[in-house]
Amino acid sequence: MPRFFLTGGSSIAGGTAFILGEDAAHAKVLRLRIGDRLIVCDGGQDHHCTVTKITPEEVEAEVFDVVPCQGEPSVRTLILCGLPKGDKVDYIIQKCTEAGAAEIWFFQSHRCVAKLSGDMEKKVARWQRIAEEAAKQSGRGVIPTVGVLDDLAEAFNKANTTDLPLFMYETGERQALKDAVEAAGEIRSAAILTGPEGGFEPFEAELARVMGLKICSMGPRIFRCETAPVAALSAIMYATGNM
Amino acid sequence: MPRFFLTGGSSIAGGTAFILGEDAAHAKVLRLRIGDRLIVCDGGQDHHCTVTKITPEEVEAEVFDVVPCQGEPSVRTLILCGLPKGDKVDYIIQKCTEAGAAEIWFFQSHRCVAKLSGDMEKKVARWQRIAEEAAKQSGRGVIPTVGVLDDLAEAFNKANTTDLPLFMYETGERQALKDAVEAAGEIRSAAILTGPEGGFEPFEAELARVMGLKICSMGPRIFRCETAPVAALSAIMYATGNM
Repeated sequence: MPRFFLTGGSSIAGGTAFILGEDAAHAKVLRLRIGDRLIVCDGGQDHHCTVTKITPEEVEAEVFDVVPCQGEPSVRTLILCGLPKGDKVDYIIQKCTEAGAAEIWFFQSHRCVAKLSGDMEKKVARWQRIAEEAAKQSGRGVIPTVGVLDDLAEAFNKANTTDLPLFMYETGERQALKDAVEAAGEIRSAAILTGPEGGFEPFEAELARVMGLKICSMGPRIFRCETAPVAALSAIMYATGNM
Repeated sequence: MPRFFLTGGSSIAGGTAFILGEDAAHAKVLRLRIGDRLIVCDGGQDHHCTVTKITPEEVEAEVFDVVPCQGEPSVRTLILCGLPKGDKVDYIIQKCTEAGAAEIWFFQSHRCVAKLSGDMEKKVARWQRIAEEAAKQSGRGVIPTVGVLDDLAEAFNKANTTDLPLFMYETGERQALKDAVEAAGEIRSAAILTGPEGGFEPFEAELARVMGLKICSMGPRIFRCETAPVAALSAIMYATGNM
């Protein structure tokens, strides 16, 4: 069913949902008609509506049911990635949104070939739209926050605000992802740090260790930098009963 | 480290690896030099070698160590997908190879928009090359078999050759993926069936149930058809201690 978030310019008042701005344009693309059903999500609840009025500027829909959004996992997971090249960023945002990420951040690490440069505001706005599209398509209750971090240190700090800060590393002394997750017991939040194409430098992994992150292995297979986040996130969702 | 499979035209004899055919061309692309190290994988063992001779037709390398391939998971997982549109097929093959799939099959189901038509031999050969590239890159011990099946019934039969045949379905009576996996206990093989863009028809799910497959939910979020297989495979790998 078509899904709209209040962030998109829509609003709800007196049992009526007003689909405005970009969302009205989106509704047009969807060829919505009087009587069609749609969902307006306020971040916590899904408002099930029936379209009652359509104009070029807005779509009005009557709310007939309000239910808690089912699409949100019980674990808030932060995805923190060393900036990859090209459209891999788009890919990570789309797939991790589908898989239930709460926040998706990119940072520059030592081996990053891509650079966080140019009109970042414009880039992040585009990334945020990718997250919104994926959130609508996959039935999420919230649109994941997408953004950039100054550096690896900031990524470590963000990761350490969660119950389970995981640093995915391909060599050296590590524990299996499963062992780290099971040792953590009941968690309400987690963070998954992954590197760019070239992975992390040993000193970056050492820094992560010193900062208290769990240095983890995703098994003997080497994942591409755009595959690792969604694979690890899927494992976390499975482990915490969200898949 | 550069990785070659015997399937690529290479061979090993008397402690020397002979990189031939397409692999020799690949070695050229990699700019291998005398003294460089590479791995030749025979499907079960990794032969660690040092390059000793390079000609336009072949690369010879001396085997200095033979170790069991570490890249293969303990569970043989079959990926069975309703044929999606465009490059989603390539995507599923690449990502599922990285994540440890043993076989990847595509079939036509009721809601498939894409068709298994044209020069399928040529298409499958191209798909197999994508699997080989991903296997090399991710350090797999074998190249997953990629192919097409006549229909959904054949997919069900393939799935039923495994210890845990899973049919991913978005509505109706289902059990959580986690419950199905945990109920199966120790498994040595599994199958993941996923639908095309439009998902499966209710009668297809009913048929799966009658055929003895486990009808599973991947949680309240709706995965895109190209994301579901790698997400479910990651969960299986995690659950069976392979990630």
